[in-house]
Amino acid sequence: MTTNRQHSPLGQAAHAVLPPVARVGDRLEEVDTPALILDLDAFEDNLRSMQALAESHGVALRPHGKAHKCPEVALRQVALGARGICCQKVSEAMPFIEAGITDILITNEVVGRQKLELLAHLAAIARLTVCVDHPDALKALSAALDARQSAVDVLVEVDIGQKRCGVQTHAQAVALADLIARLPNVHFAGVQAYHGGAQHKRSFEQRKQAAEKGIKSAAGFVDALRRAGYACEVVSGSGTGTAVFDAASGVFTELQPGSYAFMDGDYGTLEWGEIMSLRHAMFLLGTVISTPTRERAVLDVGLKSATAESGLPQVAGRERLRCTALNDEHCIVMADGPEARPTLGERLKLIPGHCDPTFNLHDEVVVIRNGVVAAIWPISARGLSR
Amino acid sequence: MTTNRQHSPLGQAAHAVLPPVARVGDRLEEVDTPALILDLDAFEDNLRSMQALAESHGVALRPHGKAHKCPEVALRQVALGARGICCQKVSEAMPFIEAGITDILITNEVVGRQKLELLAHLAAIARLTVCVDHPDALKALSAALDARQSAVDVLVEVDIGQKRCGVQTHAQAVALADLIARLPNVHFAGVQAYHGGAQHKRSFEQRKQAAEKGIKSAAGFVDALRRAGYACEVVSGSGTGTAVFDAASGVFTELQPGSYAFMDGDYGTLEWGEIMSLRHAMFLLGTVISTPTRERAVLDVGLKSATAESGLPQVAGRERLRCTALNDEHCIVMADGPEARPTLGERLKLIPGHCDPTFNLHDEVVVIRNGVVAAIWPISARGLSR
Repeated sequence: MTTNRQHSPLGQAAHAVLPPVARVGDRLEEVDTPALILDLDAFEDNLRSMQALAESHGVALRPHGKAHKCPEVALRQVALGARGICCQKVSEAMPFIEAGITDILITNEVVGRQKLELLAHLAAIARLTVCVDHPDALKALSAALDARQSAVDVLVEVDIGQKRCGVQTHAQAVALADLIARLPNVHFAGVQAYHGGAQHKRSFEQRKQAAEKGIKSAAGFVDALRRAGYACEVVSGSGTGTAVFDAASGVFTELQPGSYAFMDGDYGTLEWGEIMSLRHAMFLLGTVISTPTRERAVLDVGLKSATAESGLPQVAGRERLRCTALNDEHCIVMADGPEARPTLGERLKLIPGHCDPTFNLHDEVVVIRNGVVAAIWPISARGLSR
Repeated sequence: MTTNRQHSPLGQAAHAVLPPVARVGDRLEEVDTPALILDLDAFEDNLRSMQALAESHGVALRPHGKAHKCPEVALRQVALGARGICCQKVSEAMPFIEAGITDILITNEVVGRQKLELLAHLAAIARLTVCVDHPDALKALSAALDARQSAVDVLVEVDIGQKRCGVQTHAQAVALADLIARLPNVHFAGVQAYHGGAQHKRSFEQRKQAAEKGIKSAAGFVDALRRAGYACEVVSGSGTGTAVFDAASGVFTELQPGSYAFMDGDYGTLEWGEIMSLRHAMFLLGTVISTPTRERAVLDVGLKSATAESGLPQVAGRERLRCTALNDEHCIVMADGPEARPTLGERLKLIPGHCDPTFNLHDEVVVIRNGVVAAIWPISARGLSR
């Protein structure tokens, strides 16, 4: 290599020259890659579809913010009628509160001094609900809130088949409700009953059966609590895959879907039936950086832009192309014949396998309408996992 | 739920209250979770082991910055004798340049107007080398550099079995070297020859055979170029899994390992033989937030803190615990008996499956020595994938 090149001072010189991934008004063809893209028409259709489903059954919609971590998305969900949003972590709620979303359910147990202190602070400026499944965690929660003189609503998390968090028996649920009644700063509001596994079953019928099993289990907990004198004002749960069944159940009072707004590759493979029509609204835009063989093209999109634990991305609108590998910064795309292979510099839209962790890789999402950049929305809760 | 709670103004009130994940001088037990942890002793041992391997064979070490995206790591690698670093993307190089790393190989093709403009700018302030495998990309590179009056060294990327980017034939390699010789602002320096698949074969013998196949292929390209009048001053490639073979090959002049500094779960399962001893140095610290059954515990670490495409995390130092699922913000851990199950609030160290995309999920890494926080290093290139 040559060694005689002269270097000017460094400092902030390097970072200062990175242009934005896109500017409002740019055509889609001008957006730099990799870029996370939101098709605004499809997104808005999806928001309306789920809101209409909830309203048709008289249940509340409380979409999950962990799916997108983007306050601009949440504001549009609430504007259409959502009761508030869910978050999975306490720190994740902060940017949503800052944006003006004031009713947030933390669909999770909150354990640890720092997180309880943060929760107590946020509970003084927004209406928070949290889940509990252990008496020690509940006592610590009550004590932390006391220090700030704040309060939260509490849902007893019940395990309806997910085999993750949540109490296992009716007696445990009632014991927690008893303890909530005796402790300051916590108000019993109902139960959290989510079954993640049921969301992803492929066939409509399988998903219906799994949902019915979960609904029956949730109803059992609700009945046991009622018999003990605790009316569940809130029975919260469900997701994109089972929303149509849970909405009609007469058991759930609110739905927590997240992916419905975007429809990732995994959800896209489900049989949806005729009840609701959701469209792919999020894409990863990539550029072909190499065409080493007649059938192979390589994109500048990798594991740093899309996660792969729920399968490889699909190439949108290109039936003859298939992703065969996702490396750190490369996606290998194979064509079923030379004439179908993209050319160097060509741009492709990928549908990621799993929207939630994919949003969490990006600082912003480029919002497109009619082929033009309509907005760039910060993904403000990216990385906030505490 | 109650509706009579009073809310104070929001604005920046929420974000302002998030404490740092840790402070220098904190004990490990005080670090908030989830947190990405670096064991400084193990990390320094790993750096020294790989540097010693390279020096013992008279080859250069050019560690890959994509593994960690952290300039503080790169500065320590260079201080120990590394020639410079690799980056996988142009924008990824920026924080390293700002930190004073002035010799960077972009181990990738650079295609697209914005990226070429950025590259041309950075090439004026640092010594950059880039890869090419297509004449059109090479011409665009030369033209973009001309606009800034900057220059780069160029490696012809050759495919030695990875089946990703890289020219397929000796004739293509020579044709690119011919074109480099005719174009301004680009200087032929040698070849890039990386075989990712060879890195991860489990047995020492399998990996040796795969490495030897790659070495033979790389040597063939180097010979063909030499016969055409192009001496390869640089033959760059290799990775953590095959470094011991490539270093001794007499073909490679520099090694590009990245994971060796951290040893993720995937690399940890390889047979290493006696040549080099690498230790797990990166961990995810999690807290048990739920203990719903006698065998099950749930941690506050999920896909937003560790990727899962290379397998689920392992629980460090706890033989009787096994991760069975990684959801967005939960890790389910099963004990092989009730007495082995962690208790509520207990903290566990996980070894992530794949270090590169896991670093890319975090804004900072908490550096630990003797159980105390020695430093907090920003992961400044996180998210820089353009």
